[in-house]
Amino acid sequence: MSEMRWDPLKNLWVAVADSKSRNPRDFFMERQKLTTTACPFCYGQENKTPPEIFALRPDGSPPNKPGWRVRVVPNKYPMLGIEGELAQRGEGLYDAMNGIGAHEVVIETPDHERSTADLSAAELADVLHAIQTRLVDLRRDARFRYIMPYKNDGLEAGSTIPHAYSQILALPVIPPEVSRALSTSKDYFVRKDRCLMCDLLAQEVADGRRIVRNDGEFLTFCPYAARHPFEVMIAPQRHSHDFTQLDHGSLTRLAETLGDLLRRQRQVLRDPPYNILLYTAPPPHRRPGKPNYWNTLSFDYHWHMELMPRLARPIGVEWGSGFYCNPTAPEEAAAFLRDAFLHPAP
Amino acid sequence: MSEMRWDPLKNLWVAVADSKSRNPRDFFMERQKLTTTACPFCYGQENKTPPEIFALRPDGSPPNKPGWRVRVVPNKYPMLGIEGELAQRGEGLYDAMNGIGAHEVVIETPDHERSTADLSAAELADVLHAIQTRLVDLRRDARFRYIMPYKNDGLEAGSTIPHAYSQILALPVIPPEVSRALSTSKDYFVRKDRCLMCDLLAQEVADGRRIVRNDGEFLTFCPYAARHPFEVMIAPQRHSHDFTQLDHGSLTRLAETLGDLLRRQRQVLRDPPYNILLYTAPPPHRRPGKPNYWNTLSFDYHWHMELMPRLARPIGVEWGSGFYCNPTAPEEAAAFLRDAFLHPAP
Repeated sequence: MSEMRWDPLKNLWVAVADSKSRNPRDFFMERQKLTTTACPFCYGQENKTPPEIFALRPDGSPPNKPGWRVRVVPNKYPMLGIEGELAQRGEGLYDAMNGIGAHEVVIETPDHERSTADLSAAELADVLHAIQTRLVDLRRDARFRYIMPYKNDGLEAGSTIPHAYSQILALPVIPPEVSRALSTSKDYFVRKDRCLMCDLLAQEVADGRRIVRNDGEFLTFCPYAARHPFEVMIAPQRHSHDFTQLDHGSLTRLAETLGDLLRRQRQVLRDPPYNILLYTAPPPHRRPGKPNYWNTLSFDYHWHMELMPRLARPIGVEWGSGFYCNPTAPEEAAAFLRDAFLHPAP
Repeated sequence: MSEMRWDPLKNLWVAVADSKSRNPRDFFMERQKLTTTACPFCYGQENKTPPEIFALRPDGSPPNKPGWRVRVVPNKYPMLGIEGELAQRGEGLYDAMNGIGAHEVVIETPDHERSTADLSAAELADVLHAIQTRLVDLRRDARFRYIMPYKNDGLEAGSTIPHAYSQILALPVIPPEVSRALSTSKDYFVRKDRCLMCDLLAQEVADGRRIVRNDGEFLTFCPYAARHPFEVMIAPQRHSHDFTQLDHGSLTRLAETLGDLLRRQRQVLRDPPYNILLYTAPPPHRRPGKPNYWNTLSFDYHWHMELMPRLARPIGVEWGSGFYCNPTAPEEAAAFLRDAFLHPAP
């Protein structure tokens, strides 16, 4: 049976299994194989992608040639197009604007054979650094209200190319889940003069049951009201609204934390497809020729990452209603992930 | 490329393809076969389910024996349990309550071989009547804040038994999507003294591009800012907050509308897995021993149904962010569904 639990950040109720939790083996699935001939993300195939926007090229190699460690290119099939002014209009009761945005691909390694979980902390720190750099650049574009780095790994999670890559989507609107968390964070701060996520992390540390890993700087834990089994959050324990402000030392520790989590997940859930989302405060809202009705930075927001494995579990009514029933208690999920390397592989 | 569109009921932005829409054949998939030995929803297997709560038994046959046309039983594996008082508590920043609810199964026909799309209007009207009856009964229970009838059809849509059935879930909370639509409906009514959905339906009728079918009473259309390809809404054009108030004549016309839509969907999308949700106003909020802080009925809400086919299309970042990119313009989806029987099967 289930217990109803309320998530104060997302402001929603979730039914969470409180007995007979489903264990990892109930979710094992075989990944569908993605194949490609002459992968566009490998060395020597640089001309198969649009020209690069940014790359880490330690040996001073010329752009769009081999030699890079991490390479950022425009998505060849973008969700939203980069060209044009943002034109808003009403259509009776509806509103529309042209689909202006940026959609970029971060190729995490030239090595076709290695997954993100295989990357070293130094390599993952390079990827995170490339994302920081792109965030800082994209924020300068006044057409974008929100910039969202994310990763789809595996066909079932929305990936299309079998080579380790992340994506960055810049949007002319704030996605609804982000918008709600911004509101709850601001409301809480106004009322208490404290950050909601800071309080939440302190409570998680004191409780301990849902913690996967705590290196003193970053906390890895299963959220109290997780909507999906084995969902995990990583957040910095020192308040920061802005992921781009992490310095090199912290970025390396975050890379260690993330790599560790991906390897735990791979071990416990047998290499499932998954999604990662990185949530960081939106840039200040300014539009040419419009009043600055929201010109404060969201200092009360607390940046974080979410990892959602995509497990063998059809989702029915949850899609439309937003009411989720999580068959694995977060306390049990955390215990499995915590003990990932204590037992032989199941 | 895409256009950004705003849904005034759900209060969210969706990116909708405005050129090169994906057509039905891009989404065809083979349903995974569900199998069962001695189906618990067939005649003669009545003792394999918990005892029936309600049944349409025209020949006066005894309960839990063959002879029924529609049969409602408790779900053997409920998401939430029916027993106990609702006990709420805080856990630091979090909130919890025990998982009290009702989870029922509406067996739509004794015939194992027929899908819901095969049912006659009279048979579907029986199913809708059974749902009305259960809604009226479940609303009497003061522990439930919302009662949600829905249907998962096909393994990929969350179904587990290969026999036509719907479900009813009574919850101690209002699901987030419903809660948002209740708010936007109320806000609109307070401001304009008119119903948002009534205005929206009038605009759709005047526009015409997104209409699949209009019998004068019920409008079947693809929402302007649909999040999923081939998503469809059915709503009564005369205002009503409460699905249970439909009389027998209207129920039969709704059954005709729904059956027609299911057959169009089967034709155009080659029998896809799908979900249906029925949204109707929540019962008044009253809890024993608690103040009635919200004791008005939601007369400003407008009941409706949503149909979401589950197409061969992995969803990635949409899951976590709530930002959806719909690859098929609703105008094109509506045209395909409108013309479903004009052309030979693709």
